[in-house]
Amino acid sequence: MDDDTGSLPLKQDFSAWYNDLLWRADIMDVRYPVKGLYVWFPYGFAIRKHVYQRLRDLLDRDHQETLFPLLIPEQEFMKEAEHIKGFEEEVYWVTHGGTTPLEVKLALRPTSETAIYPMYALWIRSHADLPIKYYQIVNTFRYETKQTRPLIRLREITSFKEAHTVHATWEEAEAQVEEAIRLYREFYDGLCIPTLVSKRPDWDKFPGADYTIAVDAIMPNGKTLQIGTVHHLGDHFSRTFNITYEDKNGEQKFAQQTCYGISERSIAALISIHGDDKGLILPPAVATIQAVIVPITIGKRHEDVMAAANKLFDDLTSAGFRVKLDTRDMRPGAKYYWWELRGVPLRLELGPRDLDAGQVMAVTRTGQKKPIELAAITDGVSRVFGEIADTIRARAEEHTKSHLCTASSVADLTSTLEGGNVAVVHWCQQRECGDAIETKTNASILGTDVRSRYVPATEGTCIECGKPGKATLVGRAY
Amino acid sequence: MDDDTGSLPLKQDFSAWYNDLLWRADIMDVRYPVKGLYVWFPYGFAIRKHVYQRLRDLLDRDHQETLFPLLIPEQEFMKEAEHIKGFEEEVYWVTHGGTTPLEVKLALRPTSETAIYPMYALWIRSHADLPIKYYQIVNTFRYETKQTRPLIRLREITSFKEAHTVHATWEEAEAQVEEAIRLYREFYDGLCIPTLVSKRPDWDKFPGADYTIAVDAIMPNGKTLQIGTVHHLGDHFSRTFNITYEDKNGEQKFAQQTCYGISERSIAALISIHGDDKGLILPPAVATIQAVIVPITIGKRHEDVMAAANKLFDDLTSAGFRVKLDTRDMRPGAKYYWWELRGVPLRLELGPRDLDAGQVMAVTRTGQKKPIELAAITDGVSRVFGEIADTIRARAEEHTKSHLCTASSVADLTSTLEGGNVAVVHWCQQRECGDAIETKTNASILGTDVRSRYVPATEGTCIECGKPGKATLVGRAY
Repeated sequence: MDDDTGSLPLKQDFSAWYNDLLWRADIMDVRYPVKGLYVWFPYGFAIRKHVYQRLRDLLDRDHQETLFPLLIPEQEFMKEAEHIKGFEEEVYWVTHGGTTPLEVKLALRPTSETAIYPMYALWIRSHADLPIKYYQIVNTFRYETKQTRPLIRLREITSFKEAHTVHATWEEAEAQVEEAIRLYREFYDGLCIPTLVSKRPDWDKFPGADYTIAVDAIMPNGKTLQIGTVHHLGDHFSRTFNITYEDKNGEQKFAQQTCYGISERSIAALISIHGDDKGLILPPAVATIQAVIVPITIGKRHEDVMAAANKLFDDLTSAGFRVKLDTRDMRPGAKYYWWELRGVPLRLELGPRDLDAGQVMAVTRTGQKKPIELAAITDGVSRVFGEIADTIRARAEEHTKSHLCTASSVADLTSTLEGGNVAVVHWCQQRECGDAIETKTNASILGTDVRSRYVPATEGTCIECGKPGKATLVGRAY
Repeated sequence: MDDDTGSLPLKQDFSAWYNDLLWRADIMDVRYPVKGLYVWFPYGFAIRKHVYQRLRDLLDRDHQETLFPLLIPEQEFMKEAEHIKGFEEEVYWVTHGGTTPLEVKLALRPTSETAIYPMYALWIRSHADLPIKYYQIVNTFRYETKQTRPLIRLREITSFKEAHTVHATWEEAEAQVEEAIRLYREFYDGLCIPTLVSKRPDWDKFPGADYTIAVDAIMPNGKTLQIGTVHHLGDHFSRTFNITYEDKNGEQKFAQQTCYGISERSIAALISIHGDDKGLILPPAVATIQAVIVPITIGKRHEDVMAAANKLFDDLTSAGFRVKLDTRDMRPGAKYYWWELRGVPLRLELGPRDLDAGQVMAVTRTGQKKPIELAAITDGVSRVFGEIADTIRARAEEHTKSHLCTASSVADLTSTLEGGNVAVVHWCQQRECGDAIETKTNASILGTDVRSRYVPATEGTCIECGKPGKATLVGRAY
């Protein structure tokens, strides 16, 4: 709906490319009159819908969806000391209803532990009630003082999927952490996004957690984006909110908990990692429009071609594909440009010659061009979609692999980071060394116990103090 | 998860029945520590999911889904004078981020006109951009000072579907109002809920609208529940927010708008209208669990029966039905009670004799009992689901019809209302008479131009002043 003037910056100028692509490809409008709040265009919202439907489908295997209120009363929000410390500067407070001051201030949830756990305390009585695995997809709020960025650093996170599980033992909660990581890896593999999974250092874990496992992606500029976190909460919150159960021997025990979340940063990664100089590239599984049919009707045989294009549209739609037949009065080249910008994975060009040959020309957004037989169009399109996903995934894997570099000293680390890479170093896991490394390199210790095929679990000497250390990811993070 | 002690009050004691049913049937927990905010249990949330999926499917025919921010800056919110008057006492205000006072107060949307229309002003340039038909499903907030009720009168409306359309002419917007009414009737017919559609009196229209058409349902106690509204906004908002377009002659014109909404009151009506003394009755289309299989394995042949029950479960699940196989160690009677309370439309009892006869005993929540051949189970279950929906719909229609009574004087009207009915009267459409009728009867003029097969568009003398009047609905409204 905006003037489609000028052209998309090159992707090597990542920030400019990203900001421009969001509106050019009809994903978001950044002109909403409050900083850090954005408007989803329908085209972008449909991507969100398909992405979150995949997330729901994964979780629904053994979680249940639920919904808790947005507003959290001050007294509940303030109960868990570490948790407050982590969020108190970032919480929006509702203080008035109409012109009346509220008796109790209400926090807009920055995350829902303090909304959910008082209810868990009411619901859980016995070991037979456990485990509980609930999730919700909600809007959450953070009063960000850092620079905001659409989909990345928001004041309203519109699409926070948060799961909250309760278990009888610490070990069962630990197993759930592993299960959540497995789910998240499957989720991101479905989006063709390579992930780096690691254990965050203690000072960077979730406020109130025993430990935090994070999922990061390497963005085009080499910075990392945290796109998922899984927290073992131990009994921190259950002690605060009195979530107890009677075990098999009739004893009251505090429950053990986990929580894990994914936000619309998943879509920021999707857009950023796969796109190119021409625009968006969407994996077929989550594309708003999976295939666009462009009839080529120059000269005669207009009606033949249009009839065949309509039949093709009907056949593919009936087969469950999301298809657009582009009959606008524009040159084919302008249509190609339009749909490439918007990341449609497959273009089907249909002209008189194709018709005579009983085929359609399939041009993938990843650069392949070959005919598909009209007689076997459904299988043909499915096959090409698989190939597109494989290509996108392989490119993203290559990007991740090539941006992971080993560094064996602090100087080496600095130049690795300056080169737009994520570094693998050895670190002794002591806070003092961690702080020193972070300060000297203006970067973050992302984590240890790295789970990535590209980062073997080696041991070596800490790049700061020389004592024994473990393989550790260091990067510049969003 | 609560102690399942005591029993459900009779439905004739509607308020007690409703409040009790919500927790007994696992729909909502009312114990959240803020007045007017409630927690969806997973079982209830699944009903919501199916209901709103139907609404999405209807709208997606020619609307597009989108998402706007929750927070509205004070200056935008305060732009439209009538609109403010309608909402200023009910708006929650965010005044602080962390401990910092905000420079601009932020309203939690009570409805989204003032969030959406500044963006429409940016998006719309030409007649070629019109019509626009967008919708979103969001949480909205009202600082209710009246008594709150779960799903009916809330401080957080968790599930507000609001559509906002823009048109070139007043007539096109009027046609969209009619289209929205058609969609809403189709939606409610799918939920087997009879509706009364009428034009609200001027003093009860949406703040900032030319006119409002409302959809009401008659609840079991004879009170009416507004379950949908459609507003012709004319150019009130487009003049305020400067939403203009260039017409075919190059002239700038103000756009004409409509908006229409449905909230979780749709689910309040669903629960209230169909339920009975035993609990919930869900139409199969939106039931969390559509059929429950209860194996009867008293004595021997346990394994045969369990194998057949598992096969039945697999067959029905593969066919796309939402089925539960109840293998809990409980007496069959206790299982029946459990699932009846939760409104599962169909129970399939499978014992050794059924197995020998190649059938399963189908017991509907509406009171029918007959065998279905296992060899044709999918067709059989589909057919029974259709019968259940027909029965539910017919009962609800009968309830609505029998609670609509003509009243020919104010005294008559009072006794009709006291009898738990909705009245059809004649009214001259003058405010003075309307006020007098409302005050004398402690009821509301719901509307004129009634669209209901039970309320013919008659003319007669106004029950207050005796001048010519039109058929008008009067009821006690939630």
